[in-house]
Amino acid sequence: MKIIVVGASGTIGQAITEVLEKDHEIIRAGRNGLDVIVDITSVQSIKKMYEQTGKVDAVISAAGGAHFASVSELTPELNEIAIESKLKGQINLVLLGMDYVNDGGSFTLTTGIMMDDPIRQGASAAMANGGVKAFVKSAAIEMPRGIRINSVSPNVLQESLDKYGTFFPGFLPVPAKHVAFSFKKSVEGAQTGQNYEVY
Amino acid sequence: MKIIVVGASGTIGQAITEVLEKDHEIIRAGRNGLDVIVDITSVQSIKKMYEQTGKVDAVISAAGGAHFASVSELTPELNEIAIESKLKGQINLVLLGMDYVNDGGSFTLTTGIMMDDPIRQGASAAMANGGVKAFVKSAAIEMPRGIRINSVSPNVLQESLDKYGTFFPGFLPVPAKHVAFSFKKSVEGAQTGQNYEVY
Ligand SMILES: NC(=O)c1ccc[n+]([C@@H]2O[C@H](COP(=O)([O-])OP(=O)(O)OC[C@H]3O[C@@H](n4cnc5c(N)ncnc54)[C@H](OP(=O)(O)O)[C@@H]3O)[C@@H](O)[C@H]2O)c1
Ligand SMILES: NC(=O)c1ccc[n+]([C@@H]2O[C@H](COP(=O)([O-])OP(=O)(O)OC[C@H]3O[C@@H](n4cnc5c(N)ncnc54)[C@H](OP(=O)(O)O)[C@@H]3O)[C@@H](O)[C@H]2O)c1
Repeated sequence: MKIIVVGASGTIGQAITEVLEKDHEIIRAGRNGLDVIVDITSVQSIKKMYEQTGKVDAVISAAGGAHFASVSELTPELNEIAIESKLKGQINLVLLGMDYVNDGGSFTLTTGIMMDDPIRQGASAAMANGGVKAFVKSAAIEMPRGIRINSVSPNVLQESLDKYGTFFPGFLPVPAKHVAFSFKKSVEGAQTGQNYEVY
Repeated sequence: MKIIVVGASGTIGQAITEVLEKDHEIIRAGRNGLDVIVDITSVQSIKKMYEQTGKVDAVISAAGGAHFASVSELTPELNEIAIESKLKGQINLVLLGMDYVNDGGSFTLTTGIMMDDPIRQGASAAMANGGVKAFVKSAAIEMPRGIRINSVSPNVLQESLDKYGTFFPGFLPVPAKHVAFSFKKSVEGAQTGQNYEVY
């Protein structure tokens, strides 16, 4: 299959690429993408990416930012970061990519454990994760041409403990490879409307 | 208690007001609000509302629009309606209202069954509902001064069957009064971080 991985240079994106590249052709996308450039916060940029890639069999998103702040410090403006990137960015990859995905293809987005198991300063990211999860579940019932859609919800990664560890006290970190396996399940399997929890 | 009900003139808002007005002082808000005007899609308008009401004990939101369209017809632009209104509108009522809610007060937002039990054309509304639910669950663990936050997720209402009935085939409609009771539970009870399903 021909598969776009948005966020291919990231911790999760790299693990996904490693797991999938033996059997598939990977198009590595990102703001500094190795194969194609995309900024998911821009509708124009997403359109341009799909024009460049042409038809594909699967689109994976392992990208999406959010501002971490306690709910007392969170402002409408700071909350926009998660809205624009993690939420709208990922959903627009679907809305604008529909016509570029072959019959029976798939979209797989990324959510995250903090929507189910809240952490301090995580309300904005949780909001975006919950929005993506609900969109995926709902969109799945009316995707055209047998196209499937799922999301993967990672726990904090072993590989990200230096960066995020203090946000997740007592969370049992998972290896990036386990998360990547859920993306493989989504792309190569037949399920749709799922949010795979890698907890 | 002094309670702002945003969307007080609506089907759900009216039922909430009827259930609560015997025991509480209700401030009826909306774009054509009887007591105070607010458009939740505008940060300025929300700020102005709180300046006019001053301190309150509870804020209820029974407002929030979304565009209904199949996922093939949904565009980033049409998806903005749910983002601006149902999602950001409700969340900004919390972020901007925090300092106006008395110690031990509460926020109660509205989600909806389609995030759990998908319907055709409901992906954008489901996204907003899921975002609100996850925000509520996450924000609850760090609300200051004993302030609580919950959401209420109504099934389709008996009173709204003429308007929305065809979107919900086989859903067992609930009376608006049952939904209003969950708002009462949120306001007068002691729970936080809950999404009360009235299914
Ligand atoms: N790491 C964890 O423990 C963990 C746990 C749960 C959930 N998640 C979620 O999983 C996703 C990926 O996490 P990660 O740790 O792999 O992140 P990461 O290492 O920071 O990598 C992010 C990737 O996304 C790309 N990217 C960032 N912003 C972009 C944009 N606006 N448009 C296009 N590409 C963009 C980056 O490349 P460029 O800089 O070149 O654009 C990079 O390839 C995030 O949504 C994160 O919240 C992570
Ligand atoms: N009815 C149902 O069966 C059902 C089921 C599940 C979920 N819900 C959700 O529950 C909420 C209320 O539903 P409803 O049926 O009661 O709606 P409704 O009868 O249409 O009433 C909406 C209320 O919200 C106000 N409003 C609308 N947009 C607003 C804005 N931008 N700023 C401030 N106020 C605004 C309206 O007053 P103004 O026009 O004066 O602003 C009105 O008071 C909606 O989010 C809906 O999706 C409804």
